[in-house]
Amino acid sequence: MRDPILLTPGPLSTTLATKTAMLHDWGSWDSGFNRLTADICRRLVALIDGGEEYACVPMQGSGTFAVEAAIGSLLPRDGKLLVLCNGAYGKRMARLAEVMGRAVTILDFGETAPVDPARVAQRLASDLAITHVGVIYCETSTGILNPLREIADVVARAGKRLVIDAMSALGALPLSARETPFDAVIASANKCLEGVPGMGFVLVRRHSLEAAQGNAHSLSLDLYDQWRYLQQTGQWRYTPPTHVVAALSAALDQFDAEGGRPARLARYQANCDMLLEGLQQLDLQPFLPAAIQAPVIVTAHAPTHPAWRFDAFYQRVKAYGVVLYPGKLTELETFRIGCIGAIGQAEIQLALDAMAHALTEMRIRN
Amino acid sequence: MRDPILLTPGPLSTTLATKTAMLHDWGSWDSGFNRLTADICRRLVALIDGGEEYACVPMQGSGTFAVEAAIGSLLPRDGKLLVLCNGAYGKRMARLAEVMGRAVTILDFGETAPVDPARVAQRLASDLAITHVGVIYCETSTGILNPLREIADVVARAGKRLVIDAMSALGALPLSARETPFDAVIASANKCLEGVPGMGFVLVRRHSLEAAQGNAHSLSLDLYDQWRYLQQTGQWRYTPPTHVVAALSAALDQFDAEGGRPARLARYQANCDMLLEGLQQLDLQPFLPAAIQAPVIVTAHAPTHPAWRFDAFYQRVKAYGVVLYPGKLTELETFRIGCIGAIGQAEIQLALDAMAHALTEMRIRN
Ligand SMILES: Cc1ncc(COP(=O)(O)O)c(C=O)c1O
Ligand SMILES: Cc1ncc(COP(=O)(O)O)c(C=O)c1O
Repeated sequence: MRDPILLTPGPLSTTLATKTAMLHDWGSWDSGFNRLTADICRRLVALIDGGEEYACVPMQGSGTFAVEAAIGSLLPRDGKLLVLCNGAYGKRMARLAEVMGRAVTILDFGETAPVDPARVAQRLASDLAITHVGVIYCETSTGILNPLREIADVVARAGKRLVIDAMSALGALPLSARETPFDAVIASANKCLEGVPGMGFVLVRRHSLEAAQGNAHSLSLDLYDQWRYLQQTGQWRYTPPTHVVAALSAALDQFDAEGGRPARLARYQANCDMLLEGLQQLDLQPFLPAAIQAPVIVTAHAPTHPAWRFDAFYQRVKAYGVVLYPGKLTELETFRIGCIGAIGQAEIQLALDAMAHALTEMRIRN
Repeated sequence: MRDPILLTPGPLSTTLATKTAMLHDWGSWDSGFNRLTADICRRLVALIDGGEEYACVPMQGSGTFAVEAAIGSLLPRDGKLLVLCNGAYGKRMARLAEVMGRAVTILDFGETAPVDPARVAQRLASDLAITHVGVIYCETSTGILNPLREIADVVARAGKRLVIDAMSALGALPLSARETPFDAVIASANKCLEGVPGMGFVLVRRHSLEAAQGNAHSLSLDLYDQWRYLQQTGQWRYTPPTHVVAALSAALDQFDAEGGRPARLARYQANCDMLLEGLQQLDLQPFLPAAIQAPVIVTAHAPTHPAWRFDAFYQRVKAYGVVLYPGKLTELETFRIGCIGAIGQAEIQLALDAMAHALTEMRIRN
């Protein structure tokens, strides 16, 4: 009847205002569309207090495409990347550097602990070939929040360059270029900015971009080329996802109207708090300790009850109009519930009620 | 007031039914979305009479991303690509193979002549290192139609593999795997299928895909990985552009309702014929002889009149609600007018009238 509430952190629930922005066709060569692109880029740079020092380079494709473009373009062919890894997205960053034939090494923190800046400092001191460090701000595979500022300080002190995958963080968690030294931050339209999927972007230091010519392993994913073309013509280098871009523009209007990043964080934090409390009442155990839980996505242990089947639970919850997310862990059985998107307390309550009904129907709970 | 008519061949004008299909959010992990993807893939394979022998692999990003994914994944690391080139998109195919470090050679036909199959046969006989041949079906930079069947026969007789960029042709121009031997054909959602931009796809021989593991230079653009994951899970490997996918599904419904490929070709051909006749009445000379003009996009010579300025012409035509396309040629000044998209005789007439008004206003014509 009605569309389900998506508690899947990207694609996620967007507002009707964001979706109706897609009801127009845009010529990608037209000045009106160029203004739209320029305006989005300006707002995204402002979001990280990037001033004149940073540029925004949008990239077609999913978030992974933007991560690959950033790593492939910013890491020189003879550079070496250290990936700080505590989940699937850290692994993916290392993997994509490997596929493109770059030198890459991993510092692994398992799946339950945040990145430890002291160990990063040690590794940087012991492996001087490392030129760049990659980190995931919020590791969406569990919801772990990594201590970005401390990590950035360690990396800066060692004279290395930091590339941040802030896919599920940007727009909600704090990130200012004035306070945190970094070379590039990558995110996508359809996480905390609440646009629709189809494009990512890289907010990158202009100096680093200028030095990136010829680094890329791929024509489509060449961040330097994309930037130069945009600078020279005001246009995307290849056909942009015009409707997705228009939706992001509308989503940013709503972002501003809500009160910007602090207001968005407050809403997500309230969603997360309510979710954690509600899960406890349902005897569903959160996977992470509260201190390292980002207000983005909550991972819960699957109940140990013999009647538990995630698929059955998922379908029953969906029958109440709520879509959950499976776990993404290698060992333990878990499932995930997003706190982000165009949702508030009413939707979280509805989701908790749906989970309660499902557990009762499955005779896991009375 | 009203949205302009786009005579730009991708992004192009789409119907409201296609755009309103984007008014829903989809969970990318959900079975409903998986069915949507599977259904689109099935229909696209059927469009080329691909039967069981071919698979459809969708790819996030613009059309170029899908071309790069196809070349990078199907061409072995020690393979050699011959690109049959008569315009910007042929050049781009060669360039992306070069950037990924593959052996590539070009057979150049200039910008005004179709590919000559006899010269292709000669080249294949003289350079035995060539394993794959790349060709552009309709070279959109001018609108040249290349003789695909003859080229495919020559390539097959030489025992080489053919990769076709049919970006601006698929869905309108004939292409059947039963009649034309090829390994892969690449297209995008937002040309003759009249979807919105944000995804491409490759229709590829399963045998060739199975042999493609480990070839790719890029994680995001690995066609093999994307296919395996889709086979195993029913899902796209990374976040799909859900709204764009939904729009393509709706666009395919309308494609079928119109009468499929033959009906679409007939509409575009009528648009093209009317356009060519109308241009003649405006003393605007077509760039191509009629025999090699694809009914996709028409390139016209800029008038030699001293008052001619493309930008001024473009703005004046746009004031009448019609968006044209600049030329894409290296030497001559031209401009382009698309025949494709959700447009018919009424829109072509409107465009011709708008051009007439603009030329009069510019005092180029009485
Ligand atoms: C931290 C992080 N990095 C990368 C990605 C990959 O994004 P995509 O699925 O859009 O390719 C995600 C997606 O959830 C993510 O959360
Ligand atoms: C023949 C051909 N190949 C490739 C492309 C590139 O597509 P995109 O701009 O979507 O990357 C186009 C776009 O017009 C095209 O016409």
